[in-house]
Amino acid sequence: MTAPLYPLQYEGLVREALREDLGRAGDLTTDAIVPPDRRARGAVVFRREGRVAGLDVALAAFRELDAAARVGLQTPEGHDAAGGEVVAIVDSSARALLTAERVALNLLGRLSGIATATRDVVRSLEGTGAKVVCTRKTTPGLRVLEKYAVRVGGGGNHRFGLDDAVLVKDNHRVLAGGVAAAVARVRAHVGHMVKVEVEVDTLDELREALDLGVDVVLLDNMTLPLLREAVALARGRALLEASGGITPETARAVAETGVDMISLGWLTHSVRNLDVAFDIQPTSLS
Amino acid sequence: MTAPLYPLQYEGLVREALREDLGRAGDLTTDAIVPPDRRARGAVVFRREGRVAGLDVALAAFRELDAAARVGLQTPEGHDAAGGEVVAIVDSSARALLTAERVALNLLGRLSGIATATRDVVRSLEGTGAKVVCTRKTTPGLRVLEKYAVRVGGGGNHRFGLDDAVLVKDNHRVLAGGVAAAVARVRAHVGHMVKVEVEVDTLDELREALDLGVDVVLLDNMTLPLLREAVALARGRALLEASGGITPETARAVAETGVDMISLGWLTHSVRNLDVAFDIQPTSLS
Amino acid sequence: MTAPLYPLQYEGLVREALREDLGRAGDLTTDAIVPPDRRARGAVVFRREGRVAGLDVALAAFRELDAAARVGLQTPEGHDAAGGEVVAIVDSSARALLTAERVALNLLGRLSGIATATRDVVRSLEGTGAKVVCTRKTTPGLRVLEKYAVRVGGGGNHRFGLDDAVLVKDNHRVLAGGVAAAVARVRAHVGHMVKVEVEVDTLDELREALDLGVDVVLLDNMTLPLLREAVALARGRALLEASGGITPETARAVAETGVDMISLGWLTHSVRNLDVAFDIQPTSLS
Amino acid sequence: MTAPLYPLQYEGLVREALREDLGRAGDLTTDAIVPPDRRARGAVVFRREGRVAGLDVALAAFRELDAAARVGLQTPEGHDAAGGEVVAIVDSSARALLTAERVALNLLGRLSGIATATRDVVRSLEGTGAKVVCTRKTTPGLRVLEKYAVRVGGGGNHRFGLDDAVLVKDNHRVLAGGVAAAVARVRAHVGHMVKVEVEVDTLDELREALDLGVDVVLLDNMTLPLLREAVALARGRALLEASGGITPETARAVAETGVDMISLGWLTHSVRNLDVAFDIQPTSLS
Amino acid sequence: MTAPLYPLQYEGLVREALREDLGRAGDLTTDAIVPPDRRARGAVVFRREGRVAGLDVALAAFRELDAAARVGLQTPEGHDAAGGEVVAIVDSSARALLTAERVALNLLGRLSGIATATRDVVRSLEGTGAKVVCTRKTTPGLRVLEKYAVRVGGGGNHRFGLDDAVLVKDNHRVLAGGVAAAVARVRAHVGHMVKVEVEVDTLDELREALDLGVDVVLLDNMTLPLLREAVALARGRALLEASGGITPETARAVAETGVDMISLGWLTHSVRNLDVAFDIQPTSLS
Amino acid sequence: MTAPLYPLQYEGLVREALREDLGRAGDLTTDAIVPPDRRARGAVVFRREGRVAGLDVALAAFRELDAAARVGLQTPEGHDAAGGEVVAIVDSSARALLTAERVALNLLGRLSGIATATRDVVRSLEGTGAKVVCTRKTTPGLRVLEKYAVRVGGGGNHRFGLDDAVLVKDNHRVLAGGVAAAVARVRAHVGHMVKVEVEVDTLDELREALDLGVDVVLLDNMTLPLLREAVALARGRALLEASGGITPETARAVAETGVDMISLGWLTHSVRNLDVAFDIQPTSLS
Repeated sequence: MTAPLYPLQYEGLVREALREDLGRAGDLTTDAIVPPDRRARGAVVFRREGRVAGLDVALAAFRELDAAARVGLQTPEGHDAAGGEVVAIVDSSARALLTAERVALNLLGRLSGIATATRDVVRSLEGTGAKVVCTRKTTPGLRVLEKYAVRVGGGGNHRFGLDDAVLVKDNHRVLAGGVAAAVARVRAHVGHMVKVEVEVDTLDELREALDLGVDVVLLDNMTLPLLREAVALARGRALLEASGGITPETARAVAETGVDMISLGWLTHSVRNLDVAFDIQPTSLS
Repeated sequence: MTAPLYPLQYEGLVREALREDLGRAGDLTTDAIVPPDRRARGAVVFRREGRVAGLDVALAAFRELDAAARVGLQTPEGHDAAGGEVVAIVDSSARALLTAERVALNLLGRLSGIATATRDVVRSLEGTGAKVVCTRKTTPGLRVLEKYAVRVGGGGNHRFGLDDAVLVKDNHRVLAGGVAAAVARVRAHVGHMVKVEVEVDTLDELREALDLGVDVVLLDNMTLPLLREAVALARGRALLEASGGITPETARAVAETGVDMISLGWLTHSVRNLDVAFDIQPTSLS
Repeated sequence: MTAPLYPLQYEGLVREALREDLGRAGDLTTDAIVPPDRRARGAVVFRREGRVAGLDVALAAFRELDAAARVGLQTPEGHDAAGGEVVAIVDSSARALLTAERVALNLLGRLSGIATATRDVVRSLEGTGAKVVCTRKTTPGLRVLEKYAVRVGGGGNHRFGLDDAVLVKDNHRVLAGGVAAAVARVRAHVGHMVKVEVEVDTLDELREALDLGVDVVLLDNMTLPLLREAVALARGRALLEASGGITPETARAVAETGVDMISLGWLTHSVRNLDVAFDIQPTSLS
Repeated sequence: MTAPLYPLQYEGLVREALREDLGRAGDLTTDAIVPPDRRARGAVVFRREGRVAGLDVALAAFRELDAAARVGLQTPEGHDAAGGEVVAIVDSSARALLTAERVALNLLGRLSGIATATRDVVRSLEGTGAKVVCTRKTTPGLRVLEKYAVRVGGGGNHRFGLDDAVLVKDNHRVLAGGVAAAVARVRAHVGHMVKVEVEVDTLDELREALDLGVDVVLLDNMTLPLLREAVALARGRALLEASGGITPETARAVAETGVDMISLGWLTHSVRNLDVAFDIQPTSLS
Repeated sequence: MTAPLYPLQYEGLVREALREDLGRAGDLTTDAIVPPDRRARGAVVFRREGRVAGLDVALAAFRELDAAARVGLQTPEGHDAAGGEVVAIVDSSARALLTAERVALNLLGRLSGIATATRDVVRSLEGTGAKVVCTRKTTPGLRVLEKYAVRVGGGGNHRFGLDDAVLVKDNHRVLAGGVAAAVARVRAHVGHMVKVEVEVDTLDELREALDLGVDVVLLDNMTLPLLREAVALARGRALLEASGGITPETARAVAETGVDMISLGWLTHSVRNLDVAFDIQPTSLS
Repeated sequence: MTAPLYPLQYEGLVREALREDLGRAGDLTTDAIVPPDRRARGAVVFRREGRVAGLDVALAAFRELDAAARVGLQTPEGHDAAGGEVVAIVDSSARALLTAERVALNLLGRLSGIATATRDVVRSLEGTGAKVVCTRKTTPGLRVLEKYAVRVGGGGNHRFGLDDAVLVKDNHRVLAGGVAAAVARVRAHVGHMVKVEVEVDTLDELREALDLGVDVVLLDNMTLPLLREAVALARGRALLEASGGITPETARAVAETGVDMISLGWLTHSVRNLDVAFDIQPTSLS
């Protein structure tokens, strides 16, 4: 039961994306060629294997252009589609299919790309007990959608922003004059419903953080041996998050050190769109 | 003299990105730890070699939070920075540096990533005469910025939307009953300032399109030998654009067939963010 | 098959226009006098002969105030209504009829006024081969609607903005140091899907522009003899557009010089609204 | 001391108008031809005599594109400029001048056109004691600006919307079952700060309205003799407004009947833009 | 027949309020616990006696989250509900009930609180002939709603803003150099559909205002004996409004002086929300 | 060092509030009476003792109308002003002072009212160790501002929305089939940076919650003896929050039971605006 997206959160984006593509003069090609009463059917096809994420968001583009469009999901959100598999079918005016296609695919391709990449890393860690989480390195304006796609891929969400949890980073530590001072100031000023995480570079700093009783410690760019020592040292007194330059290739080794979670910026900032196509065929009756 | 971005086009996005990150409660960590009158200096550093794109956009994030922030560009937009090179320095309130950092880096990393990838493909085609162009496979809401980054990388822009040029695709052809019918309808309905491109799959279709006098022909997913035949057949009567699954690895070979341009969706939909860091150090005087 | 308007493009404007008229306290008169459950029928009547443009836009105002309003078009968009002809009938709550009336008529009157004026000029040129096109001299915020009305009137659209085609004007020429320099810079920087037009004042400049192979030449404020010479000189090497102070009275003479098109700013900036009325009568059953 | 426009009321519109013109790719021509550091001076010139209205609004367009633009008014808002007179000079980047020109002129031309037409009617009524007022027949989205231009022309403003005064029209009367019933309902429901006007077609209705003590009576489409009778009958017990199909040609005769004011829809819905030009010349120093 | 609220006026606010509460990650608790297909019924219950105001606004929150929500009003808007009375029932997805509850209750509680407080003052003045009116001391962004709630409570609305009537206050008088000068300037500049009110502190000023023939006089912070003198002095030549520090406790005595109306800022700026609860129970069939 | 408000968070609201008050025609009274070049000074005066909150927000209203307004704070944000104390002085155009006054005072009065009420409760609990926190019962659209005012008053913030922490309420418990099931589902679906609170009605439920290791337990509507038992039972294993119908009068007694915090909805939904005045005096030089 992945936490859902609310239409309230994406309708504006879908409309904005359509306006961005329609510009002022609209779809010149389609409007010149296709009569307004022509109807057609379009099939959304995964060109290669991947996890389906963002169907509702993507298909909303067709409904914006044809309120009477009928959408048939062929596979549920979050399932793994085979290469060539049809994941949804849209019956609507032919114009709406042609005009909304690119916006729908741009959204579906991006979100399914993130979900698929997340799923692959999650799978690669099976048996290790480490969780995969994303970061705030998201596309401006799309954070809610991209973090949702990570959840569909089986990953977890780190902070959604600067305001839902504390993360004391290097610069904060320096400006505060040490971890202890930073944490003290945080505790004096932040509400009781907020968790506190501290970033550390060394085992000494880790010790200091653990003694302060923080909820989570971010182990920044540590070597595998150091990570193992950190796990041994913490003995569950705080959650441990490994971070910094971890790739799908190195993730398993990091996970095997025993950390509780691994955070990966590239899940949202450098992932490839999944290749999704849209096959249109005229329907007999208009 | 790359066509510029207008602040009118990105100010809203930068503000929206900051609001997305600040949420309702703002930067809990920084506000608890850093006094409001503390000042600091931050250096934007390219962690690996790449082309600088989006400096104005990214640095606008700091000015939004501290109207008195002073920004010093260390390298001009569009230049190739070495790994470790400082590309800009920001002097402002320490809070603004820490709070706007992620938004600024998300923007700069994405745009520089696109510019760098474009530059690399452009370079790989040197001597061939083929131009690199992007597509409409852009991130919803960021099309203007991403197409700008392609220009900074030395690439060209294909259509910005459905409304600034005609592109007759497969589905249009089918619905119109052939290329000739489609082009006839387009010419009857579209303004005189609009160019017409037609997508073809075969040499017969190419011949038909050339005879119709269209401005550009998109050669979809053709093999190298077919592309060479197409070039021989067209003899400059229309611009030829190769498209469909071209990668940086295959681009050179495609270009050497003699086509006029190569369009690459992955320049905008699947490129990695450039790794950019922000080093902050307190300044002595507040 | 005139290219359509998308509701996505005008719904916001209609809502904004209603808000502008409702203010904060709403329709004081109607709300005091008419019970909420009273129903009525309103007929949209053309007070004088004219071409119908903007029905969907105008009637959307009633639906915004009464989602259950039923609208019956009595004549299709783009047809020529006689004076006194009913073009649409609206059945809805009496309040919605009275409250949305002015917004609906302001929109329909303006768009039909433009369409009618355009139609009249187009008709006056019959047999000459010259096309009527509009300019960027449109009402701020209404460009998409006004250019649509020109199309309904049988005219063509010139550029929708500064970004969908190049038009090198006097000032550009001066700043570039001549037509050739200007066109060279344009070709070096602008995408391959963009047409190029150059404005000229003399035949020498026309010659220069033709030799440069531009797509369109704007002949600015030329006398009829000069226009005839220009047509003879160009012999189809570029489209020729006559512009500058042309009125409905002078348009025919200009067209007979053989130019390809005539652009008329007053179609959008100085046209009279068509006189449209709204006759309301209570319906028996609420 | 005409009531002013607030920047808060027009800044958004100016930005929207610029975005409408810039589209996604910006000013292709100017950006290709004019270097970013080139400076120039532009003079706003009235091509024919007219009253200046909207200078602040229009010139805001240049400042939006070049925050350092310096604007010198050569004549105050509300003055009558001769044909050929320079009304303002703008020094800024050459790009900003070229790119914002059309938006600035579209606004200035429309508002000065309205102010000039209003002034002319006001002048033609000199000595009659009748006031010229506008209606709600304004361009959607521009009501505040257009009503301001009427004031600059020396006219007065009728209602700004449905909510700042009561106007009982024919349809209200019918639905209420008579003028007396309508006014009674209004008085029972509307606040004490709201004036009440009633539209009448006959002298009997006028008598009824006067006996009800309404503030203003609208005499709809009455002949001159009838208007004279109405004035005699009212003897100052209410303000009398003549309305319906009045033109500049007939306005004087209507005014001479002794009515207090004349309302003219065409001041805002059918007036010609004033012809305004923008002469640009490069400045020596960048 | 209280003048209504238009959905056009509150839909945006309801959506904004939901977004404010959902933030980026949505309703974490409900989404984790309640399956998406679970249905439930919620009853809106008045915890203490009060007048119902804002039902449509409040219940719109549920429809925003579940377009298929069915809402049953148990009591009409504007009626007085007993403590414990159910005023509405909502059948919808259980998630929508839980997630929209707080937004709905915040709106209903505030508007019903205002309506109830207004009703109580109105009742306390029964027999005096004085009307209760609100002021511009409303919550930023909620003026339309709060003034509506005052009407539901039986009160009247004073100005909706600075633009729908004139109110000459102390500072205006000082800056103009006296009441007469202020009123003269107002009459020279303001439209004929606008009423004029003047604030006075003394009987001399009241005399001056009455002689000027203003529509309403605001008697600011006068003692009861002074108010009685003012009423005697005015003898109906203008409406008299008592204002300044009047409380529910003192209102009756003020009203008995014979003034026409009493204005009370606290009706909108300091009233307690009515205590409203939402009882949810699962329904058997999903 | 109270966490601040960002102008990015309130500028839009201030502009919206000014637009709400200006309407379409602007400040009729001031614009008619006060010349545009007249300058004046205004003093913001606390009419009764209270804590200053919202100065930056309120004073932004003057700057919006006169960019050159100079604002002098006479007392810092968060200090306790005496009755009659001047807290800020504004020098600007006289028009801006008169026109922005109401918006500024509405904001300052509301936020200072909340801060003062919070401060008073906080003071009344001195020595008890219990913290005062607010709830989500805030005015739609003002949550960020109202929660800030609570912090200025010395209170703490509970959740900002549904998305920054989990609160399992009665209805969740029922729908999940018990506390244990609810918490289990939450833990399976919610990120690691999110705290979990559970609402309980009985000591048995408290025991269950404590055994589950939740972060906070909300004791709903418990009697004082029950609260004391709860404190004894919990012995610090979770934070305890007392909630439900607590008033300033009963708060101290609740706090003395030993709970960690008390949440009070009326701090934001039913508090009185602080009475703030604005005294304007003309300045000698314009």
